Amino acid sequence: MSNVLEIIPLGGIGEFGMNCTLLRFGDEMIVVDAGMGFPEESVYGVDISIPDFDILEQYRDEITAIVLTHGHEDHLGALPYILKKFNVPVYASNFTLALAEYKLEEHSMLGDVMLHRVEPRDVVTIGSFTIEFIRASHSLIDCFHLAIKTPIGTIIHTGDYKVDETPVIGEAIDLRTLRRYGQEGVLALLSDSTNATVPGRTPSERAVIPAFEEIFAEAKGRIIVAGFASSIHRIQIVFDVAQQFNRKVCVLGRSMQKNVEIADRLGYLDIHDGMLIGINDAKVMPDHEVVFLVTGSQAEPRAALYQMATQVYKGLTIEETDTVVLSARIIPGNERAISRLIGFIYKRGANIIEEKRRLIHVSGHASQEDIRIMTEAVRPKFVVPIHGEYRMLFRHKEFVKNHMGFPEANIILIENGDVLELDSERAAVIDRREIKRTFIDDSGFEEIEYDTVRERKKMAYEGMVTLVLTVNRETGELQAPPQIVAQGVRGFETNGVSASRFRSQDSGQNGTASRHLLKDAEQVVTAAMAGASRQTLADESLLKEHVRVELKRFIQKETGARPVIIPVIQQV
Amino acid sequence: MSNVLEIIPLGGIGEFGMNCTLLRFGDEMIVVDAGMGFPEESVYGVDISIPDFDILEQYRDEITAIVLTHGHEDHLGALPYILKKFNVPVYASNFTLALAEYKLEEHSMLGDVMLHRVEPRDVVTIGSFTIEFIRASHSLIDCFHLAIKTPIGTIIHTGDYKVDETPVIGEAIDLRTLRRYGQEGVLALLSDSTNATVPGRTPSERAVIPAFEEIFAEAKGRIIVAGFASSIHRIQIVFDVAQQFNRKVCVLGRSMQKNVEIADRLGYLDIHDGMLIGINDAKVMPDHEVVFLVTGSQAEPRAALYQMATQVYKGLTIEETDTVVLSARIIPGNERAISRLIGFIYKRGANIIEEKRRLIHVSGHASQEDIRIMTEAVRPKFVVPIHGEYRMLFRHKEFVKNHMGFPEANIILIENGDVLELDSERAAVIDRREIKRTFIDDSGFEEIEYDTVRERKKMAYEGMVTLVLTVNRETGELQAPPQIVAQGVRGFETNGVSASRFRSQDSGQNGTASRHLLKDAEQVVTAAMAGASRQTLADESLLKEHVRVELKRFIQKETGARPVIIPVIQQV
Repeated sequence: MSNVLEIIPLGGIGEFGMNCTLLRFGDEMIVVDAGMGFPEESVYGVDISIPDFDILEQYRDEITAIVLTHGHEDHLGALPYILKKFNVPVYASNFTLALAEYKLEEHSMLGDVMLHRVEPRDVVTIGSFTIEFIRASHSLIDCFHLAIKTPIGTIIHTGDYKVDETPVIGEAIDLRTLRRYGQEGVLALLSDSTNATVPGRTPSERAVIPAFEEIFAEAKGRIIVAGFASSIHRIQIVFDVAQQFNRKVCVLGRSMQKNVEIADRLGYLDIHDGMLIGINDAKVMPDHEVVFLVTGSQAEPRAALYQMATQVYKGLTIEETDTVVLSARIIPGNERAISRLIGFIYKRGANIIEEKRRLIHVSGHASQEDIRIMTEAVRPKFVVPIHGEYRMLFRHKEFVKNHMGFPEANIILIENGDVLELDSERAAVIDRREIKRTFIDDSGFEEIEYDTVRERKKMAYEGMVTLVLTVNRETGELQAPPQIVAQGVRGFETNGVSASRFRSQDSGQNGTASRHLLKDAEQVVTAAMAGASRQTLADESLLKEHVRVELKRFIQKETGARPVIIPVIQQV
Repeated sequence: MSNVLEIIPLGGIGEFGMNCTLLRFGDEMIVVDAGMGFPEESVYGVDISIPDFDILEQYRDEITAIVLTHGHEDHLGALPYILKKFNVPVYASNFTLALAEYKLEEHSMLGDVMLHRVEPRDVVTIGSFTIEFIRASHSLIDCFHLAIKTPIGTIIHTGDYKVDETPVIGEAIDLRTLRRYGQEGVLALLSDSTNATVPGRTPSERAVIPAFEEIFAEAKGRIIVAGFASSIHRIQIVFDVAQQFNRKVCVLGRSMQKNVEIADRLGYLDIHDGMLIGINDAKVMPDHEVVFLVTGSQAEPRAALYQMATQVYKGLTIEETDTVVLSARIIPGNERAISRLIGFIYKRGANIIEEKRRLIHVSGHASQEDIRIMTEAVRPKFVVPIHGEYRMLFRHKEFVKNHMGFPEANIILIENGDVLELDSERAAVIDRREIKRTFIDDSGFEEIEYDTVRERKKMAYEGMVTLVLTVNRETGELQAPPQIVAQGVRGFETNGVSASRFRSQDSGQNGTASRHLLKDAEQVVTAAMAGASRQTLADESLLKEHVRVELKRFIQKETGARPVIIPVIQQV
């Protein structure tokens, strides 16, 4: 056993989301965060992705704990999946644990896990690791930086953060403790890069209050505020400003209701009596006395805002006199959908307040000057940018190097699967592992294999043709005409589920062409069978390949299409 | 025949791209622009979309001309497809026609079409319509506003524009002529809304020159400029600044090479002798003497920039000493891909200049103050916002109403398929038609039917199961065990193309579970056949539905998945 620390990111490097980092010393390993990601494969039935925890199998006996920095899905969402494989103790803050419990209950696992609640400034020793939980400021509440003491030095893991000296709920970032570690000596700072491209400071959570006050002062009718369900500071602001302007708040959308309930129950939210009203009360109150706090800022089709904008949601629909406040950033990838949603809301005649026009949203992540404050407080020997796409990691490096004079050799850019080895003097990537993501179909909490998604992609692109051949078990000769079933294949449009579609009015000219093509294709296969050698006919896999290739050639020549072709042989 | 004008947008309203507007007076109709769109269905093999020209069938004998405002794909790209159905005369500028000819040649149509070249200030009378072509300024060259005189009044169609008094190539926007029409009286202004959310003025095409000069002055190694192939002003700037800094320009990427060739041949570009070099020359020249002007600013995987960043493109690869200039906006929907591309470039160690950090890109579209200039010049009775998602159209309306005091009743918001009827006093939508898009597989210039795309979507989401039943022609009884072929279905992972995959090492535990599931499913089908009534067995469509439902229930119960299930019956 050598005297080195290994840092291995399983996710969150070179991507948004899925944050998960392993720290290994000797034969002990802790896992920092277990986040989920939101992959672009959603059209292939993939709801979320999680890190490939199978890689942890080789360390099964070494894993001593999972430590969570905070409760956002990209840090917490994979917790049930990792615990199903490795049921080790979990350490997290009060609010983070409440979210974790809710999630574990959904997976019916709550009775079988070991959850440990820690407070800011708590110090927990887990084998060779001694971890202090330091208060961080972020868009969520009850978040931690981690100071992880190891035999070769201290690692500071920032989690997600910004330097907010005036948060709405709770105390400010604990720079004092970070500076104390800086004075004692920090080996490496693993630091949030999400906003490393953004100059200046990230505004405090309080910064949106004036704009909200203006909007509430101007609005004549109902106010609908859409935001992230996890933005607890923002939720408090909505309640505060609502009270100031004599409005009551009705919370809509499952995740928003859940988070308000949890944060209220645990005492994080300060909601005065009578301020929170149900939907039935909200419906009968005068418009100028109501605020709806809703989910759907990312234009999710099933969320409250989208439903209210396009149809009716629990009897509610957006009206001309409404003011809609989009109090959230646009998550990359959602631009087109959000733009369309805004169009729908305009169509209803409502007034929309977007982020670009007024300060109604602030980021929870460190901008460049926050990064400077953090780095100067911690004074690490090595800086390791984490959390973000490569673009952000590189800009993080660039900023620390060019604007803080940090020595380039001591800024370490790593990738998911890298094994970064540190001793008290040196840091180097000594191994790289191929890291995959694991796809999850969230409706059943089930994994979807890569091959399955690959097959879906192929079928999606040019469709699928199934070729059924009924052959004599002895001679290998055709016993019935070949049948071809095409799904989503250009040129074969009227073929498919049922014969009745052949006679449908819609098929028209294409239907005729399609029928001819189908008939010709069947003839091509029949000819291919007739021309096959005895050896081919006798070997099912040779035969399949033979007819597949012939049919593929024919379809490509006739239509230009290259569908997936699956031959099925029935022996009778 | 009533004395009214009908304006019918076929595309470009409530969406980016696919601009196409019909103007109809009596029994005469002209078509303004024939643009393509870039739909989100690309994972389903759809390359482009075009307006549904079948709707023009009812006007077949009325269509007298297609008039193109300019040569961008979202105004020109559908020209071959409309001309294949309605081969009417086309009017366009010199440069627009050159692009159109190139495109029509690709479709092998060039010999069969009627193209008419018009110059700025040309006036063409086409039946009841008298059209003056007015010089517009835009990111492309040789663009027009259209002044369309009709018996009931003049319509100004802006096309795409910004108010650029100092374009790089050619003359400035002809505000004087627009004002003349304004004095004479304009019934309606159909006006570009793309940037209606942007305050202030859109900078001149020249505005990027200082940043380019700075970048060229700083760069020690090669410079790689990625931009839109159609940004001819920008291309001229790159050549000019290259010459100033003693660099030669090598153009890479098919569309960029095509446009440089056309613009150079027609005399729009001013390229000094020896400035344009081939790739072989560029490779052997000192780094500080070369600029590569490349395609791929939107991170298209097959374009030059992406290839150079991730592998080798014609022997070239991005290196540490390179400076990469992303001289283009991010088209919505491409954010994630571009961010990843930037990451790849950073990984190569190159310096990247992004739009956000320096003024290396300007829009070609009118911001709010440009819209003010246009609207004040034209002084229309009615304003009809066009070109843009609803969000932009509504903001256009809001700006003209709130900031210009234009009467709200005279700002007409229309949608694709609306029939806007105007007489000299009044404008109203008198009919709405359901307008679809037509999907095109651009590799073969072939239409893809909606049903085909719908089938692909379904298979993509949860996979497809083909169930093959071989039954006795007389009795309807099974003659062989049912065969189930699953593609992309969760729970059936190791089933599929060939039996050999059953034995593959990868299948492991899932493979075993999957084999059991498959066997159980086959038994379910066998049992369903055994339990089927004689009537069901005798009717193929009843039988198919019977087994499909039973199999569907089984799969959903066992795995939660709901794949497409296609039964195939082979009679022997």
